[in-house]
Amino acid sequence: MMQYMTALLFDNFETLDLFGPIEMFGRLSDKYAIQFCSMDGGIIKNTHGVSLPTIAISDLHYSTDILLIIGGQGTRHLVDNERFLQVLKKLSNDAKWVLSVCTGSALLAKAGLLDNKQATSNKRAWDWVILQSNKVHWINKARWVVDGKYYTSSGVSAGMDMALGFIADRLGTETALKISQDVEYRWISNSTLDEFSQNINS
Amino acid sequence: MMQYMTALLFDNFETLDLFGPIEMFGRLSDKYAIQFCSMDGGIIKNTHGVSLPTIAISDLHYSTDILLIIGGQGTRHLVDNERFLQVLKKLSNDAKWVLSVCTGSALLAKAGLLDNKQATSNKRAWDWVILQSNKVHWINKARWVVDGKYYTSSGVSAGMDMALGFIADRLGTETALKISQDVEYRWISNSTLDEFSQNINS
Repeated sequence: MMQYMTALLFDNFETLDLFGPIEMFGRLSDKYAIQFCSMDGGIIKNTHGVSLPTIAISDLHYSTDILLIIGGQGTRHLVDNERFLQVLKKLSNDAKWVLSVCTGSALLAKAGLLDNKQATSNKRAWDWVILQSNKVHWINKARWVVDGKYYTSSGVSAGMDMALGFIADRLGTETALKISQDVEYRWISNSTLDEFSQNINS
Repeated sequence: MMQYMTALLFDNFETLDLFGPIEMFGRLSDKYAIQFCSMDGGIIKNTHGVSLPTIAISDLHYSTDILLIIGGQGTRHLVDNERFLQVLKKLSNDAKWVLSVCTGSALLAKAGLLDNKQATSNKRAWDWVILQSNKVHWINKARWVVDGKYYTSSGVSAGMDMALGFIADRLGTETALKISQDVEYRWISNSTLDEFSQNINS
């Protein structure tokens, strides 16, 4: 059965946070379909010159099986945006799975969605991220962390490893490995390996 | 001085071919600015659900310092599109540098731009790629290959390694290493390492 992934965008998102996972899920177009949305729809932009049309959350075509929450500089404002956090809460609670990349987990944490759960985030923004909630069991040394329906990954390129990890958990390691070979990607398939955990900056 | 990168898009491009390099160059927004174009402008789409507004080549705002040629299923038709190949030839000849990812090098080869040069490409499409020109010195085992102003990379994720390699060549290895750390990416910085070179499929 087709699973619908909703990618929630906002201005100044991080390019690879989004398109790394999209590449991996996009290769299984018979199993996953992706809808790109934002709070109010329209063109979303970032500082890399990327612009992308999105649909408004209220206009989503399909209910969300997998919610993808990305990071980037835009999150620095969104943690103080009550309306955004309420929408994120509803979307996350309604989704079967919630996947975050990089500082996307700061948004989930601030919305209270990771309370009493284990999670990780970008090591380059670590001090700022963990300030968003002291109710989260933050795991510093991890490429990605799974707790219940929440998959949270480390910074930027870790989203690709987590995406393949999620695919392995749902469809088997062979399927994930085949994708990594097809895109000539050296998959870090062990979620506890994290050579970047020492690079802590706020 | 700002360098302008022109990314040439077409329908059914491969998502990560484009956005992997864009992430790396986008992090140097004081040095590189990126313009997304296509033959006739408008929205370009691919099978991963990605859609992207582009400007027409005839409307490019800036002359091209760096041309980025990506791959994907769309290239299978474009090698027979004489108008596209002529435009590609002019853009490439006018650019200071030409970077290709994945089957993007098949387009360059078919346009005659790689004649008597060394180049590589996606190992998953190898037999098809090398059919496009027998005047190219195709290098099978390489993450990316540099010959004069042409940088050609292997499949999909190799574009990120090549982008960092190009940045290292222009701005120094420290700059490239810093980006790889900031995006928590395990950069394959040796262009001759290629664990995927055995996976030959047409």
